[in-house]
Amino acid sequence: MKSLKVIKIGGKVIDDDQKLDHFLNDFASVKGPKILIHGGGSIATKMGERLGIKPNMIDGRRITDAETLEVITMVYGGLVNKNIVAKLHSLGAKAVGLSGADLNIIPAKKRNPKPVDFGWVGDVETIHTEWLSQFLDNEVVPVLAPLTHDQNGHILNTNADTIASSVATALSKDFETELLFCFEQPGVMNDGKLITKMNLLLYRYLKDGGIITDGMIPKLDLGFSALRKGVKVSIRSFEDVAKTESGTRLVK
Amino acid sequence: MKSLKVIKIGGKVIDDDQKLDHFLNDFASVKGPKILIHGGGSIATKMGERLGIKPNMIDGRRITDAETLEVITMVYGGLVNKNIVAKLHSLGAKAVGLSGADLNIIPAKKRNPKPVDFGWVGDVETIHTEWLSQFLDNEVVPVLAPLTHDQNGHILNTNADTIASSVATALSKDFETELLFCFEQPGVMNDGKLITKMNLLLYRYLKDGGIITDGMIPKLDLGFSALRKGVKVSIRSFEDVAKTESGTRLVK
Repeated sequence: MKSLKVIKIGGKVIDDDQKLDHFLNDFASVKGPKILIHGGGSIATKMGERLGIKPNMIDGRRITDAETLEVITMVYGGLVNKNIVAKLHSLGAKAVGLSGADLNIIPAKKRNPKPVDFGWVGDVETIHTEWLSQFLDNEVVPVLAPLTHDQNGHILNTNADTIASSVATALSKDFETELLFCFEQPGVMNDGKLITKMNLLLYRYLKDGGIITDGMIPKLDLGFSALRKGVKVSIRSFEDVAKTESGTRLVK
Repeated sequence: MKSLKVIKIGGKVIDDDQKLDHFLNDFASVKGPKILIHGGGSIATKMGERLGIKPNMIDGRRITDAETLEVITMVYGGLVNKNIVAKLHSLGAKAVGLSGADLNIIPAKKRNPKPVDFGWVGDVETIHTEWLSQFLDNEVVPVLAPLTHDQNGHILNTNADTIASSVATALSKDFETELLFCFEQPGVMNDGKLITKMNLLLYRYLKDGGIITDGMIPKLDLGFSALRKGVKVSIRSFEDVAKTESGTRLVK
């Protein structure tokens, strides 16, 4: 089976031109079939602020109201996505920038407004892999923005980690797939020290102990879910994207 | 030879949700291979105003400075493009939204800054048709935003009429191609009356007489250039996109 790397790059790297350039250089050097999934980081928040759109929050979580959806469609689907595609091309990697609406790659379901109405947020229904495989077979790099659609004409906001994990899992039937969550930390940390291997037992222990918190929890849940379905998973620094082993590796 | 329709939709239709819906409904009903090229109309201008970006004009022509490029990359490549793709899908047409950077479809050259520096504006170098043909052969509708790239990592702003004419001409080697410029008028008008057929002689006569002015001049120049290369060309109302004959037809 051919191998495939599904690489998610975090928002704080995208926010920083120098870090993003560094990452894209290394990413372009990664051999073999690969897919990039990006967030939009604080660019969308800043753009929203400049447009006078007040963040609408419930329990610390942002609501995707109609105005916010407009901003993320612009920033994720346009600004970030197209600039990454243009840069990758200049680095010798032919890329295609896509949202989940394009080629109907990711149909999603608008989240139930009860108990909390998160607005235009989509939960992935399925991943249509035919065109992704077609691109990969032709040495084209799909660059996915974290946008899906409801098949009724609406774009939806979907978490980039979720898309990365869903895409990696779906393609693991055709490829020996590796999922890399790249961000600005060396991996999962405990008291300033990198944890190089993590299994479910250790994860639960550290979560219960309050060592693993916040955004790392859904990321690890998604990682372990992909691992169970046969995907190799690591959480690592954006500077280590081209390395064979690095960061925190999830194990059974 | 298979037939192909390359359809350009004007900015004033995109500005108006009702007109755009009407157009997309009819567009989705057009049988056979088709490509949609859209502008961004005043949405980009309004977004620029909301962001406090002052239009930078020379001789009545807008300069694409770095801030303006950011806005049009967001609006054309993200907001307008992805919403059209999602809507087309809901109307039964599988679509893929692309800029000229995606799949390196449209490499362009940044315009010479002398005599006038128009900023991040690109002149089309070539159209790579392989992926466009691949999509069309699989009943996928390419939806092109008027963005190109310089192959050195920069997105460029390119006129949508130019892209439409270049794409139609390039694909006319593989398809019997028709180019439709759709907008909010019935066609080329003289004194409130539609001109149903136009050849080069009549065009020059009306241009010299001041009947044909402004934006219609480059549109007709592009149309006649495509016609010379074997493309069937008409300029018509967005309401007539699905009609066999309508508006002003260019003839030799």
